[in-house]
Amino acid sequence: MADQKTIHNSNRTIIFDNYMENMEERPLILISNDDGVFARGLIELIEVIRLFGDIVVVAPDSPHSGMSHAITVERPIRIHKLQQEDGLVIYSCSGTPVDCVKLACSKILERLPDFVISGINHGANTSISVLYSGTMGAAIEGSIHGIPSIGFSLDDYSHEADFTRAKKVVARIFQKVAEYGLPDGICLNVNIPKGEVKGINFCRQTRGKWMEEFEKRTDPHGRDYYWMTGYFNDAENEARDTDTFALLNGFVSVVPVTTDLTAYNAFQFMQKWKF
Amino acid sequence: MADQKTIHNSNRTIIFDNYMENMEERPLILISNDDGVFARGLIELIEVIRLFGDIVVVAPDSPHSGMSHAITVERPIRIHKLQQEDGLVIYSCSGTPVDCVKLACSKILERLPDFVISGINHGANTSISVLYSGTMGAAIEGSIHGIPSIGFSLDDYSHEADFTRAKKVVARIFQKVAEYGLPDGICLNVNIPKGEVKGINFCRQTRGKWMEEFEKRTDPHGRDYYWMTGYFNDAENEARDTDTFALLNGFVSVVPVTTDLTAYNAFQFMQKWKF
Repeated sequence: MADQKTIHNSNRTIIFDNYMENMEERPLILISNDDGVFARGLIELIEVIRLFGDIVVVAPDSPHSGMSHAITVERPIRIHKLQQEDGLVIYSCSGTPVDCVKLACSKILERLPDFVISGINHGANTSISVLYSGTMGAAIEGSIHGIPSIGFSLDDYSHEADFTRAKKVVARIFQKVAEYGLPDGICLNVNIPKGEVKGINFCRQTRGKWMEEFEKRTDPHGRDYYWMTGYFNDAENEARDTDTFALLNGFVSVVPVTTDLTAYNAFQFMQKWKF
Repeated sequence: MADQKTIHNSNRTIIFDNYMENMEERPLILISNDDGVFARGLIELIEVIRLFGDIVVVAPDSPHSGMSHAITVERPIRIHKLQQEDGLVIYSCSGTPVDCVKLACSKILERLPDFVISGINHGANTSISVLYSGTMGAAIEGSIHGIPSIGFSLDDYSHEADFTRAKKVVARIFQKVAEYGLPDGICLNVNIPKGEVKGINFCRQTRGKWMEEFEKRTDPHGRDYYWMTGYFNDAENEARDTDTFALLNGFVSVVPVTTDLTAYNAFQFMQKWKF
């Protein structure tokens, strides 16, 4: 595995226009997603991110929506090289989005990538969805490895979604991260509205939850099974600094995401507990 | 679905010794895990938690370690009632630990449970492992539903592990949560040392990461596959307020866990970004 510190520092000093002129300094960019290696959002992401560096794609061989930060420990993992051309190599992987990043960083790539970019997800990953999202799982895993990482999602589930505006947003935000880097251990959760983009807002994660409504069916053999469905319940409709508010109002939401889940403000609550 | 507010408020006012005397007020406790419904840690947990309320177990039908906060969206889910006796019903579920909690809350139980207890996991879930852990996925899902929730892990992978001390710890911490409740949206990540227990410490999550070492093998058909292995890299050996430090020194670690992943201290870093 490459010397992470050197690479990490080098990211901080990259000036975007410079490495465009000098091909030897083109960054190595790992791309993954959770909709699978054949998803349109991935192809659109490759198209825009290729402008900025050499790309290695390691993405699941099938859809892995809702896989969160899951890793594969009970089964072995397989990878297949699907495509190789100048500046672009594509692998499919039988594992989860997080497996893809782990395998890329420790086995496939000769050095740690300079960036991990995940998406473009078909559908938003605002609010509590950041916890369930495989797209964000991959980006968060990149940040755990100390690599500046971004997860992109478009608020449109349709396969015919228009990615034109989304790709411009991806380019603008990628350039900022390339220029300034990101604080250690922090990645970005970026959600892009479906229609016209009015601007790009830094936001916090909305408090809310998914309300499940499992649909019960009976199979041809008379046995019951359940399909998970549900709708999102926004617990703070009035707040204006949240990611769901931004997205609903035509703005791109950018939420910095931490991997430290400690609820520091809860320590006071537990002070009275005597063991 | 039951009226969550009423139940949630009732948790806050429960005095543990009181509901022990009045069986009509026994709380409804949902138990899950990630090692599967036949795991020893689950049976030990049922044994101790049964003292405190009526138990419904909904646990995966097979081991789901490393499943994090994953949900099943691409496949239907099946459940089977395995056992029913006075004050104890056990279901197996084909889904993830988080699926188990969602299905229990929206389909299996007649009302929201008063507590969600997950574990006892075979192996520690300190530091960054909280992100990968299915045990903690179930507990975190409970907290998203507004239910006081705890994930318990024992720092011993052995099937022959001694749970005697662990069960005493489970009882003591459960009683505190039953008496005081937990702040809304916060659950507890509890890790119990293998040997003698010197005390119970409130801690923060250690900064660290798993270093992967994928083992490459070749199957009988000549095709390569990988097994994920690895070791934990503690990024802050010197810190004394972390969960790994507590566990290493014979103390139970109790980390309050939030579902708000916003890195609030990163906003300042991005102030200079002009879009």
